[in-house]
Amino acid sequence: MARKRQKLSITSLGGVGEIGKNMTVYRYGDDIIVIDAGLKFPEEEMLGIDVVIPDITYLLENKDKVRGIFVTHGHEDHIGGLPYVLKSLNVPVYGTRLTLGLIEAKLKEHGLADSTKLNQMDGDTVVQAGVFRVSFFYVNHSIPDTGGFAIETPEGLVVHTGDFKFDHTPVDGRPADLHKLASYGDRGVLALVADSTNAEREGYTPSERVVGARIDEIVMQAPGRIILATFASNIHRLQQVVESAERHGRKVAVVGRSMVNNMQIAAQLGYLQVQPATLIDADDIGKFPPEKVLILSTGSQGEPMSALTRMARGAHRKIEIMPGDTVVLASSPIPGNEKYVFRTIDQLFRAGANVIYRGVHASGHGSQEELKLMLNLTRPQFFLPVHGEFRMQKTHAELAQSVGVDPENIFILGLGDVVEFGNGRAAVAGRVTAGTVMIDGLGVGDVGNIVLRDRKLLSQDGILVVVVTLSKETGRILSGPDIISRGFVYVRESEALLDEATKLVEATLTRLVSDNVSEWSSLKTAVRDTLGRYLYEQTRRRPMILPIIMEA
Amino acid sequence: MARKRQKLSITSLGGVGEIGKNMTVYRYGDDIIVIDAGLKFPEEEMLGIDVVIPDITYLLENKDKVRGIFVTHGHEDHIGGLPYVLKSLNVPVYGTRLTLGLIEAKLKEHGLADSTKLNQMDGDTVVQAGVFRVSFFYVNHSIPDTGGFAIETPEGLVVHTGDFKFDHTPVDGRPADLHKLASYGDRGVLALVADSTNAEREGYTPSERVVGARIDEIVMQAPGRIILATFASNIHRLQQVVESAERHGRKVAVVGRSMVNNMQIAAQLGYLQVQPATLIDADDIGKFPPEKVLILSTGSQGEPMSALTRMARGAHRKIEIMPGDTVVLASSPIPGNEKYVFRTIDQLFRAGANVIYRGVHASGHGSQEELKLMLNLTRPQFFLPVHGEFRMQKTHAELAQSVGVDPENIFILGLGDVVEFGNGRAAVAGRVTAGTVMIDGLGVGDVGNIVLRDRKLLSQDGILVVVVTLSKETGRILSGPDIISRGFVYVRESEALLDEATKLVEATLTRLVSDNVSEWSSLKTAVRDTLGRYLYEQTRRRPMILPIIMEA
Repeated sequence: MARKRQKLSITSLGGVGEIGKNMTVYRYGDDIIVIDAGLKFPEEEMLGIDVVIPDITYLLENKDKVRGIFVTHGHEDHIGGLPYVLKSLNVPVYGTRLTLGLIEAKLKEHGLADSTKLNQMDGDTVVQAGVFRVSFFYVNHSIPDTGGFAIETPEGLVVHTGDFKFDHTPVDGRPADLHKLASYGDRGVLALVADSTNAEREGYTPSERVVGARIDEIVMQAPGRIILATFASNIHRLQQVVESAERHGRKVAVVGRSMVNNMQIAAQLGYLQVQPATLIDADDIGKFPPEKVLILSTGSQGEPMSALTRMARGAHRKIEIMPGDTVVLASSPIPGNEKYVFRTIDQLFRAGANVIYRGVHASGHGSQEELKLMLNLTRPQFFLPVHGEFRMQKTHAELAQSVGVDPENIFILGLGDVVEFGNGRAAVAGRVTAGTVMIDGLGVGDVGNIVLRDRKLLSQDGILVVVVTLSKETGRILSGPDIISRGFVYVRESEALLDEATKLVEATLTRLVSDNVSEWSSLKTAVRDTLGRYLYEQTRRRPMILPIIMEA
Repeated sequence: MARKRQKLSITSLGGVGEIGKNMTVYRYGDDIIVIDAGLKFPEEEMLGIDVVIPDITYLLENKDKVRGIFVTHGHEDHIGGLPYVLKSLNVPVYGTRLTLGLIEAKLKEHGLADSTKLNQMDGDTVVQAGVFRVSFFYVNHSIPDTGGFAIETPEGLVVHTGDFKFDHTPVDGRPADLHKLASYGDRGVLALVADSTNAEREGYTPSERVVGARIDEIVMQAPGRIILATFASNIHRLQQVVESAERHGRKVAVVGRSMVNNMQIAAQLGYLQVQPATLIDADDIGKFPPEKVLILSTGSQGEPMSALTRMARGAHRKIEIMPGDTVVLASSPIPGNEKYVFRTIDQLFRAGANVIYRGVHASGHGSQEELKLMLNLTRPQFFLPVHGEFRMQKTHAELAQSVGVDPENIFILGLGDVVEFGNGRAAVAGRVTAGTVMIDGLGVGDVGNIVLRDRKLLSQDGILVVVVTLSKETGRILSGPDIISRGFVYVRESEALLDEATKLVEATLTRLVSDNVSEWSSLKTAVRDTLGRYLYEQTRRRPMILPIIMEA
């Protein structure tokens, strides 16, 4: 067999060593395809940042090679980065019908809908993208129309799972495509690139129908109104809620922008079946007896502006929590959100509601037995655990080992790491540029570490601005020094402290000026040092000190 | 029976509707006793705040009536507020030996050790504090020498549980005092004031010995060094770790200030038994083979400056994580700390350690069956669920109902709510001043909502300072305007934006000055409005804008 000069390379620009902003890049020679383009929500330290997207410098450096972006499903951590990516990389986008529907809505918000080519895929579609031959297989997840990609390359077949679980009694009647996965395994899979989210969880993830059964139980027993909050993208769950309501004679009102929008798109595209008479307007809730009402709402994560959170605070324009209400959080707090969720739950209890916040959820990601099933169906030669933080990837790697994958053939990628496959072998072969781009307002990537560091400092002890006007001729003080503080102390109670501080600055400057020190940087440094020391002694706080010198 | 004119009142100044800063106040006529004086760690929104303590205005208004502070155990949320309280309320403090030992160390830091009267209590002590006759009973918890108080009042006996679990195989051989609790129940308990922390958990909380067994398993099997992080105050757990190490021939090095301090106090007072040859200095770790070393460390909560977190970051002066190390987190993330803990775990995995972070912990608080046991032993007429967030108090109230307490006799207190007992009846009778005092550096309570609001604003989009010097005579611009920003944009890349902004401010001021507007407040408002609007249009960000006018 002639030695091929090219190699297949796989790189992750997002979603490894982290949860969020998923983006995997496949390259063979001059052909590149991208799987997913997600966003991530900011870490706590990323003060003032709105969203985070992958650094796509590598793709921009190879702009002419990118043949298309294939999207596994419509969750934000897989499509949220698309508007930003497409602005500088206008390539065709491939996905299933619901996925494209959600993408289109997003592109419209960014004014990119007309300029983007959206190509629908289903279980039969085969796309030739450069040297890559890409087909699609369905899996189960917490949003319908989800799947993975089987990517044929000159080196062999790669199976990219996307986010998946195996739900044997799925709400839409379409289980994950075991037969296709088995056929890939029969043909021979070079590499499996798989979802590690729940690798630490033993056993199986329960079927979505289990949640539906629990919801039905609650709907049947609730004495008054029901307010149910869940993930707006979990159409299967919304379907089961709607069916329960219909079964038990309740009208359904929908509140919360993303819930309304998602249900509209899902219904229009045929993914959600609702009887015409079921839905009522939020304004008409009062026209029905409480036990005939179910309100479907956003806010299961305690998001500050969501409908449920506003209801809990007594700040929702149309809905007020009443004793007798049953509030259901059909969800689980995403790590980091626990405090917000529990705060909302406490407020709902105080408002007199009966709150059910446990046992009404099932994850969209497979647990250990399902991950092993995927491995045994596809029987890959090489294994790349992705979509997870490091410990999840590591645990997934151990699972792969336990079912027989050679540990030498398992690669735990970090952002930008490149694994190359050639002539039946694979090895890590360097890194490409990869990382994080922070978006704040309209600015993409302009807020970096320095700005964040300053925001952090300001958030801890505030700022002290020291202004003084010096004479152009003599260098003497013409006006000031004046000290203005924000976020440091409560000014009305700290006059003595600030007076002393002002005198100290005046003395410092006067002394330096009479010593003929006129360099502004020296004057500023002296003010910063003297004042900083004084304030720390007095208060044990370190506000940012900003000396400003004017000349007149 | 002559009608008593006085009533017994119970109020919580901390620890209800929240976790932390516990403080319960019992009053009868002119006698007040306080149970516990804790602190709480700041919420996320309390930017720059160090700790939070109860607002004791009510106690200060009744200074002459306070007979003493009784402390249930040595955790920060029960003793952390003492130094601040004692500064303005110098009353005797009562507690067990270990509790007083920990309190004394704390008072020394604040220079209050000499002026405070510390009175030791044990199972036999009875203290007459005004009209209250206070005795102590032991319970089990995650720190030794913990108990509750039986408070005899003219209205009847109140049992204040403090934090408790029922551990039938406790490490120190002293189970909770079931017999005393039963005797209280026999005598007749007016009210039970009980710990609601784990009211949502079904079943029983496992014994601390279960954790010891698991630790022993790990110590036996670990191939190389062991680094074990746990709560420094959990002396029972430290005892089991030390015993395991001794049993398996390992030396123990202790790192982390609070771990070193707590172990010293516990050993000195006889609560921790360590064989002389067991402990080694951190500097001597290298002198022993890895499989003969166990390092006991702080950092089980991912605290930024703790020993384990620094090791994980590669920033610990003495200890570097090596492949072959087994790191054990014998703990569970306190709600809110999950991200920090998992970040540390990922870093430890990356550094090559085998990390065990599940299944090596048992809570110090009783679950539902233990809470019901406490209720059935004491058989109180009235029930006050405390020490928990609202949903925990509510669930605890439901448990009390389920064992037969009349729902009318159950009171879920909020901060400051007063429950009065008189003539066999009880009712909520108004509120006293209660709330939160935030401590930042040396300042106690001076940082309030305004300062926090400013810090929040500053943390989101930074600050723009606009300085201009106007002529005293003509009002015209002498110098500036100059714009200095921090935390808003990366200045080097945003010169055009800031130049435009400066021109805009200049135009605005020039126009107003020529229109004879000289009121500084009007000038500042105009600058703030114009600049704010412009910046939002350009960036969708809202930095704080601070216009400063000087005269010369």
